[in-house]
Amino acid sequence: MANPVLPSSGVLSPLGLDAVRLNPGFWGDRAALNREVTIAHCQEWEEREGWIGNFRGERPRRGREFSDSETYKLLEAMAWADHPALPALAETMAQAQEGDGYLNTRWSGSRYTDFEWGHELYCYGHLIQAGVARLRMHGEDRLTQVAIKAADHVCRRFMEGTRTCGHPVIEMALVELYRVTGTERYLEMARRFVERRGLPALADIPFGRAYFQDDMPVRQAQVFRGHVVRALYLASGVVDVAVETGDQELLKAVEAQWERTVARRTHLTGGMGSRHIDESYGDDYELPPDRAYNETCASIASIMLAHRLLLATGDARYADLAERTLYNMLATGVALDGRSFFYANPLQVRVPAVPLEGVNHAAEGGLRSPWFDVSCCPHNIARTLASLPAYLATSSADGIQIHHPTPSEIRHGGLAVRVETGYPWAGSVTVRVLEGGEGRIGLRVPAWATDATLAHVPASSPESPLPEGPVIRPVDPGYAYVDGPWQAGDEIRLELPMAPRWTLPDRRIDALRGSAAVERGPLVYCAESVGDEPRLGDLTARVLPPEEREADGVVELEVAASLRSGDGDGWPYAPADGRADESAEPTDVTLRLVPYHRWGNRGPATMRVWLPIQEK
Amino acid sequence: MANPVLPSSGVLSPLGLDAVRLNPGFWGDRAALNREVTIAHCQEWEEREGWIGNFRGERPRRGREFSDSETYKLLEAMAWADHPALPALAETMAQAQEGDGYLNTRWSGSRYTDFEWGHELYCYGHLIQAGVARLRMHGEDRLTQVAIKAADHVCRRFMEGTRTCGHPVIEMALVELYRVTGTERYLEMARRFVERRGLPALADIPFGRAYFQDDMPVRQAQVFRGHVVRALYLASGVVDVAVETGDQELLKAVEAQWERTVARRTHLTGGMGSRHIDESYGDDYELPPDRAYNETCASIASIMLAHRLLLATGDARYADLAERTLYNMLATGVALDGRSFFYANPLQVRVPAVPLEGVNHAAEGGLRSPWFDVSCCPHNIARTLASLPAYLATSSADGIQIHHPTPSEIRHGGLAVRVETGYPWAGSVTVRVLEGGEGRIGLRVPAWATDATLAHVPASSPESPLPEGPVIRPVDPGYAYVDGPWQAGDEIRLELPMAPRWTLPDRRIDALRGSAAVERGPLVYCAESVGDEPRLGDLTARVLPPEEREADGVVELEVAASLRSGDGDGWPYAPADGRADESAEPTDVTLRLVPYHRWGNRGPATMRVWLPIQEK
Repeated sequence: MANPVLPSSGVLSPLGLDAVRLNPGFWGDRAALNREVTIAHCQEWEEREGWIGNFRGERPRRGREFSDSETYKLLEAMAWADHPALPALAETMAQAQEGDGYLNTRWSGSRYTDFEWGHELYCYGHLIQAGVARLRMHGEDRLTQVAIKAADHVCRRFMEGTRTCGHPVIEMALVELYRVTGTERYLEMARRFVERRGLPALADIPFGRAYFQDDMPVRQAQVFRGHVVRALYLASGVVDVAVETGDQELLKAVEAQWERTVARRTHLTGGMGSRHIDESYGDDYELPPDRAYNETCASIASIMLAHRLLLATGDARYADLAERTLYNMLATGVALDGRSFFYANPLQVRVPAVPLEGVNHAAEGGLRSPWFDVSCCPHNIARTLASLPAYLATSSADGIQIHHPTPSEIRHGGLAVRVETGYPWAGSVTVRVLEGGEGRIGLRVPAWATDATLAHVPASSPESPLPEGPVIRPVDPGYAYVDGPWQAGDEIRLELPMAPRWTLPDRRIDALRGSAAVERGPLVYCAESVGDEPRLGDLTARVLPPEEREADGVVELEVAASLRSGDGDGWPYAPADGRADESAEPTDVTLRLVPYHRWGNRGPATMRVWLPIQEK
Repeated sequence: MANPVLPSSGVLSPLGLDAVRLNPGFWGDRAALNREVTIAHCQEWEEREGWIGNFRGERPRRGREFSDSETYKLLEAMAWADHPALPALAETMAQAQEGDGYLNTRWSGSRYTDFEWGHELYCYGHLIQAGVARLRMHGEDRLTQVAIKAADHVCRRFMEGTRTCGHPVIEMALVELYRVTGTERYLEMARRFVERRGLPALADIPFGRAYFQDDMPVRQAQVFRGHVVRALYLASGVVDVAVETGDQELLKAVEAQWERTVARRTHLTGGMGSRHIDESYGDDYELPPDRAYNETCASIASIMLAHRLLLATGDARYADLAERTLYNMLATGVALDGRSFFYANPLQVRVPAVPLEGVNHAAEGGLRSPWFDVSCCPHNIARTLASLPAYLATSSADGIQIHHPTPSEIRHGGLAVRVETGYPWAGSVTVRVLEGGEGRIGLRVPAWATDATLAHVPASSPESPLPEGPVIRPVDPGYAYVDGPWQAGDEIRLELPMAPRWTLPDRRIDALRGSAAVERGPLVYCAESVGDEPRLGDLTARVLPPEEREADGVVELEVAASLRSGDGDGWPYAPADGRADESAEPTDVTLRLVPYHRWGNRGPATMRVWLPIQEK
């Protein structure tokens, strides 16, 4: 079962890379580009920056203290993609590993002297995830030996004691290694790392212990807080521990934290993170579009967590957030050529970015960059796209469930189906049975699809002609099921309503007051203005039905707006009773909206998702 | 002339500590508290943290790389206050200074190896400012010897070459040392530091060279940008150089930068700085109330710059911004007991802060702290309040000008007047002539005072009775003048309109859309809710005239508002055409507003300056 997450229990079981094959389409194209371009791009840059050389003992050591983890993420991507460069790279790791399993190019010689910022266990976590991927895709080899040796070292060193790592990830890695090997000490080690956190396990830091979720035990927390990637990696590991130990209280705690976080700390794109300084959530309802941090890695972590919660509970809301995050964050994070990446993903950019050559030292979100000083995002995209089929469909005792319709073929228990769709541009999804079998087929109806319909079209045959046509029935958001048995040629046709929708923010989100956004299907749209012409800061939109316009297979939208100009440039606050409107009469204009994930591919531009709207 | 800024030319000349004496009142009370409490508080904490011990050679050295500068700022405050602890402290400096004038407790032994972050010239800048204060208040002594020796070292070392310091301040310090000593090389050194900047003079850093204003020559810049304190200290030095060298182009460049910055990058309180991560301005119209950084030091730098531009041009708008910043930022920065301080000054706080014991390692703005890892703000407050009289009034060939009315006595050229006022609580300002003399008296009428009146009431005498009463005339914002000659007992009575005012933001400030604030006189008001009860996030205000309520000499206000509750807690974005209002009927409530500078003195609280307002 070729899966990054394979729980031993839960409402749903994932279908892995051996059961789901992507065909050309929105995600199939991206997965192919990732396999053919992005993985090699990452390897080239890692060599150029010396991060792989660190393992070969090249000195001076280069890169940040956690750069080993980037190579491990790359190895994980290679494992999922069955990439030919993996064995040589794994051999380099093996040569660098010390006799007792310790492996770190930065801290060798001063082991475990900085739990807050040293990232040693964090690096192991990514190494172990790569090893798990290799075990499931290929079986034992040098990489899996290195990973297991490191995991055994960690268990020997840390089974007793009170410490854990400033950056979670080892928790979920160890649970998965337990799942694939059956070795129970890995699960126990993960459980202890989870339970130690917040006692506290780490020293205080200027950002406060909430930064690494060490401010309180995980069972007591009400919401995700602090550094977003840390919070979501930890929560993913907590779900894994809860599922394997049957700890319902622990699972419920994470579900409640997720629910409040989604209600109060999540941007429309599914992005999480409102502060640059510590890459953290910020307070409830602190959701600034311009300074939204929304790290690409955080969105991947959110997908990882939502997937685990979906498997554990079968609740469609987790798949809903995963879909939003896949189409508006993961797809946004990488350019159309697969060679440049967003780190931060704001929802508004007021000033066109200045193009950079080479490594981007900052994380601002104006233009995609080929590389960063901290290049977690490119590698995280690479490993996620390489394992994407594992996130799309699941099985249960009574059949299969398709959570994210995209051109693909799915096989399970003798049944084989092909998903045919132009989604997310078109709303028609056809599930065509290729090989008959038993069980019901479930299709997720997204929360936004309030007028969806479903038709079951049995294969035409002389015995069962259907002259009156298929029965079309309305289906509510959640899961729509059609019972088997199935024979080749049977079809399910889901029709999702694709009219563009105006969306308003909760009144408590101060930064969005007086504005609205446009969505269509799973996609969030934005106004993008190359060179800021027209000036997005001077536009006010009208909440009228947008017009659709197709260009190169992409649906763009047009909305009515008015453009103001000639405003004064003095003190920008004026008496409520005496404001003189200095601006000229506004001009009617048509404002073009593009899918948010497409923005930033046409050069330096301004952009905004939330449009000021005219008062009634 | 006991003044921190004493230009040799300009439209106005400052009246210093020898000409302006504060009486009990809004600023007199604060200056007394500063002299009696805050200066000693700073010295105690500097000793406790080892920053003074660094000069005595105590090891290990403690504090940040620029901690020397804090001791120098403290020395400057002591110089203005004629504080008895100064000589001993200055002797410690003298002992630490090396033979060639070099003095730095961090970099001695590895001099000038890090211009970007080393802060060596920055530290000298503050040392020289302390020396200038001492020269003007007292005359030569050990402190002034140390400062001049350091300045001479700087001139020898840096007159040729291309380097400057990552943190400006030495520019204005050197110009002032030139002004007090007449030694021209100090001016020339300052001029060269100004002109080198942006060529560039420093290495690139992850924040970009704009962080330290090294992205372009100062003459080419359109706006203040990057780190706010750096930008405003630099601009102050640029004005000083421009004035002393007669460089009108340079002066005009700063005026234009100031104008755009005030129009697009300044918060209602006068605070500047919208980003925490690099303590920088952010983009035009990026003015988030919740994440406003508004460092207290930045507001002091803004007052220093506005004062210089006022002296150079006589333009009331500079005094207007200084007033706004004095009453809403400087007065906010220090608690009523003089022993705790704000570093950041946001305009909205959603979550009550958790009280801290001891040193605050962060700069968040929820509660005032007695000390910080970087304690620039307490010292900057101390030196500014100690020299405050120098910012209040000026002279010119034809008389004196009173820019900031507060209880005080002013003497110039034989004329002596007493300012009597309950300002900022009351709008009546009486200037009473104590000793007669020549010249006209100017009084600034703030920009917000659109219905002010002025009366000239000559002293009653048998020869000139005035049975019909004084003539009251309307005066416009700017300066209102009354011509002399004067005799003891003459009075000028200015009446400023003190009705509370609702203020709306420019439509381009996205973060403030749909909200309004209340001002009264020079004061910005805010809603403060101790423990967040009532919940400020659930209140909507009505734009109706606020009621006034006096408590302990402070004018508070009450506005009509409605409180909502019972809102759902799911996905916080909903279709524009289908939003179900889940909340109960709003309840009418009265919302109490307090002056912004008073907030945070009653324990952990939420706060907001900008109130959501009901749509018509």
